[in-house]
Amino acid sequence: MESGESEVSTQRIEAFSDGVFAIAITLLILEIKIPHFPGEISGEQLKAALLGLWPAYLTYVLSFIVVGIYWANHHYIFKLYKRTDHTFNLLNVFFLMCISFLPLPTAVIGEYGEHIATQRIAVIFYNLGLLLPAVGWASMWLYASRGYRLIDRRLAPDFVGFLAKQYKLSVLLYAGALTISFWSPLMGVAAAVGLTILYLLPPKKPVYLQEEAE
Amino acid sequence: MESGESEVSTQRIEAFSDGVFAIAITLLILEIKIPHFPGEISGEQLKAALLGLWPAYLTYVLSFIVVGIYWANHHYIFKLYKRTDHTFNLLNVFFLMCISFLPLPTAVIGEYGEHIATQRIAVIFYNLGLLLPAVGWASMWLYASRGYRLIDRRLAPDFVGFLAKQYKLSVLLYAGALTISFWSPLMGVAAAVGLTILYLLPPKKPVYLQEEAE
Amino acid sequence: MESGESEVSTQRIEAFSDGVFAIAITLLILEIKIPHFPGEISGEQLKAALLGLWPAYLTYVLSFIVVGIYWANHHYIFKLYKRTDHTFNLLNVFFLMCISFLPLPTAVIGEYGEHIATQRIAVIFYNLGLLLPAVGWASMWLYASRGYRLIDRRLAPDFVGFLAKQYKLSVLLYAGALTISFWSPLMGVAAAVGLTILYLLPPKKPVYLQEEAE
Amino acid sequence: MESGESEVSTQRIEAFSDGVFAIAITLLILEIKIPHFPGEISGEQLKAALLGLWPAYLTYVLSFIVVGIYWANHHYIFKLYKRTDHTFNLLNVFFLMCISFLPLPTAVIGEYGEHIATQRIAVIFYNLGLLLPAVGWASMWLYASRGYRLIDRRLAPDFVGFLAKQYKLSVLLYAGALTISFWSPLMGVAAAVGLTILYLLPPKKPVYLQEEAE
Repeated sequence: MESGESEVSTQRIEAFSDGVFAIAITLLILEIKIPHFPGEISGEQLKAALLGLWPAYLTYVLSFIVVGIYWANHHYIFKLYKRTDHTFNLLNVFFLMCISFLPLPTAVIGEYGEHIATQRIAVIFYNLGLLLPAVGWASMWLYASRGYRLIDRRLAPDFVGFLAKQYKLSVLLYAGALTISFWSPLMGVAAAVGLTILYLLPPKKPVYLQEEAE
Repeated sequence: MESGESEVSTQRIEAFSDGVFAIAITLLILEIKIPHFPGEISGEQLKAALLGLWPAYLTYVLSFIVVGIYWANHHYIFKLYKRTDHTFNLLNVFFLMCISFLPLPTAVIGEYGEHIATQRIAVIFYNLGLLLPAVGWASMWLYASRGYRLIDRRLAPDFVGFLAKQYKLSVLLYAGALTISFWSPLMGVAAAVGLTILYLLPPKKPVYLQEEAE
Repeated sequence: MESGESEVSTQRIEAFSDGVFAIAITLLILEIKIPHFPGEISGEQLKAALLGLWPAYLTYVLSFIVVGIYWANHHYIFKLYKRTDHTFNLLNVFFLMCISFLPLPTAVIGEYGEHIATQRIAVIFYNLGLLLPAVGWASMWLYASRGYRLIDRRLAPDFVGFLAKQYKLSVLLYAGALTISFWSPLMGVAAAVGLTILYLLPPKKPVYLQEEAE
Repeated sequence: MESGESEVSTQRIEAFSDGVFAIAITLLILEIKIPHFPGEISGEQLKAALLGLWPAYLTYVLSFIVVGIYWANHHYIFKLYKRTDHTFNLLNVFFLMCISFLPLPTAVIGEYGEHIATQRIAVIFYNLGLLLPAVGWASMWLYASRGYRLIDRRLAPDFVGFLAKQYKLSVLLYAGALTISFWSPLMGVAAAVGLTILYLLPPKKPVYLQEEAE
C-alpha cells in the first residue's frame, strides 16, 4: 500500500536523523582542545588555560542547546509530515549537513572568540553556522506544505501558514544576527543567545480542522 | 490520546539519550593521545611513553564506568517516569550536556594528572566534571517527582522520598570530593573512585503502593 | 523457523549499517581542521584562513552527499534482500569499511587539494576512496542475486539483471574518474561531482513478476 | 512478570552494545592521521606520505574486521542469553570498554609499526588490545553459563561446554600471540592476522536438548 510504504520511509528518516543529531551534539566536546604546552607547566598556568577556554565553554553550551532544540523540533514536526518523496529526503540530508557543520564554527569561536582582533570574523562564521540549518529547516516545511504535498491533510490552513511564516521569520532573524555581527561581534553573540532562548519556548500545538489527526 | 502521546515522547527521549550515552562513552578513547616525537624514537622510548599514559588509562576506565552507570540508571529511572513535559525535556538535555562534557576533564587529567605541579588543578576539574551530571540527575528527579508530576502515581511516597534523598546526597558527596581535591589531589581521586565503586551496587528496587505498576 | 530467523538478521544488519552511516557522515566535519597559528593573529588572517578552507568545504559537501545517497540506496536495496548468510554479512562489513574510510581521503583533499603541486595525488586518493564502496556495493548485489540466492524470488529477472548491469557500470565509471584524475585533477573532480549528481536521481522502482512482493 | 522484564533488559543491553560497536568501528579511521608538513610540499612527497601509511591501513582493516566479528558474535550469543543480572551488565560494560579501547593500539601500530626500532612495542601493545576483549568475552560466557544461570535452559550441556572451551582457548591463543610478539613482532602480527581469519568462519550452530528453543 502506497501510504503505508511512505510512512515507513518517514520512520527511517527520523531514525537516521536522530543518529546524526546524537552524534553531532556529542562531537561538540571534541572541538574544545585542551591546551598543550612544551615541557611541564605550573598549576597556575593550567588553571589560567582552563579558565581561558570560557568562549569555548559558552559556545559548547549554546551549540548543544541549538542542536537539542532542533532535535526536539524535528520530532515535533515529523508528526505533521505524513508522506515523503525523493526531493524531501534530499532536503533533509541538506538540513542534516548544516547541523553536522555546526561543530566547526563552534570550534572557531572557541579558539578565536577570546581575542579582540579575531572576534568579529569568528562570530560572523558562527552566526553563518546558525543561519544555515534555519534555511534548511524552512525549505523542508515550505516544500512539504505547498498544496499539502507531504503534510497531514487535516491540519488547519491557518496553522500551516503560521508555521511557514514562523520559519521564514526565523531565517530573517538569523540573517539579522549575522548582519549585526559584521558591526558588533558582542551584539552578534547577544542576538544568537537571545534567539536560542526564544526557541527554548515550547512549539505551538498543532491545530487540526477536525478533532482527530490523520 | 494525551497520555499515550506522552509515553511515546518518553521513548524518544530514551532513544536519543541512549545514542548520546553510547557516543560519549566511545569518544573517551579519542582523548588519549598517542605520544608524538620529532624524528624516529627507540623502542624503550615508546614503551616509556605508553606506560607514562597510566593516568589516562585510569581515568578512561573511571569515566567509562561512570557513564556506564548513568546509562544503566537512566534505564532504571525511566521505568518510573510516566509522562514528560517541555521543562523536563530541557532538563534531560542539560543532563546529557554534562555527560557529553566528561571527555574533556578526562583528557585534562590524562595529560596533566601525572605531574605534581598540575595534579591539583586537573583533579579539581575532573571532580567538577563528575559533580555536574549528578546535579542534572537530581534536578530531573526533584522536578518530576514534585507532587508526582511526571512519575508513576502508584510509587510509594517513602520510595519517592528515598530516591530524592539519595540523589541530593549524591550531589553533596561529589561536592565533597571536589572540595577535598582542593586540599589533596590524591584524596580527591580516591573519593571519586570510592563514589564510583559505591554506585556499582545495584539500584534499589522500586516500591509500589499496590502490587502492579501503572 | 529458518526464514523468520534470517529476516531478523537482515533487520540487525540494517540497524548496524544505519549506525555506521550516521557516524561516518557526522565524522566528516572533524576532518576539517581549523587553522592554528603561533601567537595572536589579525582578523584578516583568520578570514583568509577560513576562506582558504574552500576545498575542505567542497569535499565535505560532496562526501556528505555520497554517504547520504549510499544510506538511501541501502534502505532501497534491503527491501529486495530477503535472506542473509555468513558471506553476505562479511561483504556488508567490507562495504561499511569502505564507507568509514571516506573521511580520510576527504581530509587529504581538504588539506592538499588547494595547492597545484599536491592536487593530483589528493584527487587520485579521493577518487580511489569513491571507487572502493562502489566495488563493495556491486559485490553484495552480484553475490546475493546469483541464482536468486538471497533476494526476493518474485523479482523480475530483467530487473535483477538491470541492477547488476547498473552496479557494474557504476564501478567502471568510478574507475574511469580515477583514471582521468591521473591526467587532470580538475577533470577528475568534475567526474566525481558529475557522478554524484547522477546518483541524486531516484533509484529505479523494483519490478516484480507478480503484483505483490514476497 | 520477572522473566518478561529480564528479556527487555537483554534487548536494551543489545541496543546499547550495538551503538558502541558501530561507533568504535567508525572511529578507527580517525586514528589514521594524515601527514602534516611545514610549508608546501611536492606531489611526490604527498604520494610517499600516503603510501607510507600502509601499517595504518593494514591495522585499520584488521581492527575493523575484529570489531565486525565481535559484533556478529554478540548477536549470535545474545540469542543464547535469556536473563540478565547486575553482575552480567557490568561484565558487558567491561567487555565494551575493551572494544572501545581498540582504536588506541590501532593508532600506535599505525604510527610506530613501520620503524624497526618501535615495531616490537607497537605489536605487543596491539596484541594486548586484542587479548582484552577476548578475556571480557570469555568472562561473560563463563559467568552466564555456570549452572545455566542466565542462558537458555534447553541448550545441550555438550554445546555449553564446547563454547566455554572455545572461548577459554581463544584467550589462550591471543595470549600466545602476545607472547610471540615479545620475540618476533612479525610473527606476532602474523598470529593476530591468522586468528582473525580463523574467526571469520561462521560460529557453531546452537544445539538444543529439545527441538524448539526456549
